[in-house]
Amino acid sequence: MSAERSDAASGPAAPDAALGGGPTTGELGEIAVLGRILPRLSSGDHALLGPGDDAALVAASDGRFVVTTDLLVHGPDFRLAWSTPFELGWKAAATNLTDVAAMGARPTALVVAIAAPPTTPVSTVEGIADGLREGLAALAPGAGVVGGDLSASAVLTIAVTAFGDLEGRAPVLRSGARVGDVIAHAGRRGDAAMGLALLFSEATDAAGEPDATLAAALREREPDLVRAQLAPSPPVGAGIIAAEAGATSMLDVSDGLARDGRRIAEASGVAFDFDSAALGSDAARVRLALAGGEDHGMLATFPAGSDIPEPFEVIGRVVDGAGRMLLDGRDIEADGWDPYSGWDGRAG
Amino acid sequence: MSAERSDAASGPAAPDAALGGGPTTGELGEIAVLGRILPRLSSGDHALLGPGDDAALVAASDGRFVVTTDLLVHGPDFRLAWSTPFELGWKAAATNLTDVAAMGARPTALVVAIAAPPTTPVSTVEGIADGLREGLAALAPGAGVVGGDLSASAVLTIAVTAFGDLEGRAPVLRSGARVGDVIAHAGRRGDAAMGLALLFSEATDAAGEPDATLAAALREREPDLVRAQLAPSPPVGAGIIAAEAGATSMLDVSDGLARDGRRIAEASGVAFDFDSAALGSDAARVRLALAGGEDHGMLATFPAGSDIPEPFEVIGRVVDGAGRMLLDGRDIEADGWDPYSGWDGRAG
Repeated sequence: MSAERSDAASGPAAPDAALGGGPTTGELGEIAVLGRILPRLSSGDHALLGPGDDAALVAASDGRFVVTTDLLVHGPDFRLAWSTPFELGWKAAATNLTDVAAMGARPTALVVAIAAPPTTPVSTVEGIADGLREGLAALAPGAGVVGGDLSASAVLTIAVTAFGDLEGRAPVLRSGARVGDVIAHAGRRGDAAMGLALLFSEATDAAGEPDATLAAALREREPDLVRAQLAPSPPVGAGIIAAEAGATSMLDVSDGLARDGRRIAEASGVAFDFDSAALGSDAARVRLALAGGEDHGMLATFPAGSDIPEPFEVIGRVVDGAGRMLLDGRDIEADGWDPYSGWDGRAG
Repeated sequence: MSAERSDAASGPAAPDAALGGGPTTGELGEIAVLGRILPRLSSGDHALLGPGDDAALVAASDGRFVVTTDLLVHGPDFRLAWSTPFELGWKAAATNLTDVAAMGARPTALVVAIAAPPTTPVSTVEGIADGLREGLAALAPGAGVVGGDLSASAVLTIAVTAFGDLEGRAPVLRSGARVGDVIAHAGRRGDAAMGLALLFSEATDAAGEPDATLAAALREREPDLVRAQLAPSPPVGAGIIAAEAGATSMLDVSDGLARDGRRIAEASGVAFDFDSAALGSDAARVRLALAGGEDHGMLATFPAGSDIPEPFEVIGRVVDGAGRMLLDGRDIEADGWDPYSGWDGRAG
């Protein structure tokens, strides 16, 4: 792999040309497609052996490694009328990096398997690789893609497995929150869900199908919210910051503060009491922060009296009551996304 | 995760009941499906943290870890009319474990992501989990499933990432073969391809579609060859044996000896001269050994004069000539499977 990698950017570059044009993966075949992808990626600073053998070899400086895996599937997880290939690669990197970061680890490497219909333009796979590279460079400098797999499928599918190094730190678990701890959050709250709601309401045609032209117009009007959904820039570095500041529990917020807060609360045997004034300026924003998924911010608890490090903001307090979620002292319902019940069956 | 795991077996148990009956993944939802799967799996002897947090934590005793990833997709990679869910899980484990073993590493852990149509019976996902567990127990005792992901997709897809520990050994690469080395192989040669050829010729209906009834009859007549294709038991332990015996190069034979031998030959700048008498008793068996994929045996080279350790058998000699493949001193053509050009588009 070459070391081609841009300097870190604050957000993804302009979308590539969308699907269409050029040879397909089926026409070129696996070897030639790999030959187009590998030069676009770097294996990063932690790879002892990158692609080229049956397996890669990655450094694990403290004799342990953190690992998480995730599938992005055309239909339930993305629509090609809305997301560019670059954005798919970027988001696939971002959402896995935050799972590593939420343990208090430094992301070191990814492996990526892509299954694509043989009719897929090679430019689509190249765009995914470009998005992976730029997402890694922006969000986790030094981490790279150390290996992968190319397969055929009737459905475009991206499988990412991400690794991290705790560098001797104890992992930050979901089970460590204690009554009296401060609840803090780093990252955006509700923007990704608002972006998705806008796409569904303003970028679908009369039959409810995702529409690329309408999506392009929406990008012009609401670039920030669309990007929060399609190519988020979550605070990956906040994971280590929290761990070093003594966080007692942490996770990455994929399903909204209420559902993910409940995960910590249940694992820790405590209750979370969120402060509505800290979550948003009006009831709609507060509800979005609690129920909206895919922001991938860091939700952590810190011992009472801690100096809460930037970019974390205090949003509540851990109180007594196993697994309950409160807002200003009153019970709320958890709400979020279930991959099996939440998909409308469309692929777009 | 519970430690429920059977004793190692020499091959997979009888197939489970195939698709059908019971609730679906869409009816139960992600949490309930996970609740059915996790008790069937063990996180193994190397997991420091198993499922339950944003990421798992795995031991890497020598400060490095080996990693490989692979996708199994309904259609190009398996047919549900032929494979039981148990066999899918078993094969997903087996084919990834051999990639780890081919580096000279001990398999330690897997992460597994499954994307399934919401109409998939939960029993199918349970069967996959059972096959993963039993495949690991039989082929790589001590290795476990440390994490995973459940998603929805229109196409049943299994993404496996496997890890290994070199325990201080140098990795065995494709690039280390030297002129004069002995070529040796451990495992079956051509049986998986013969099993697949039988399935295509004798377990498809008049329209060419995979047929479960015909497959059941074929299983009765040719249990060994069908199992070699659908639930192989490759010699995972041979990888460490070869590394400790001083193997100069190694890989796992996924695409036949000719195509995979060429990978070593090209990476090492040498030629491979196979001995036909060692490959099979007749020309058809020799051709199957050279061209037939999915046996997942270990192909290795050893310095001349080495004691070749069991279960390896000498099958040729490394000679001069960059990347050439010879049989009894004469050039042969590589031949194998390309995931993008080799799929007929059916799903079965």
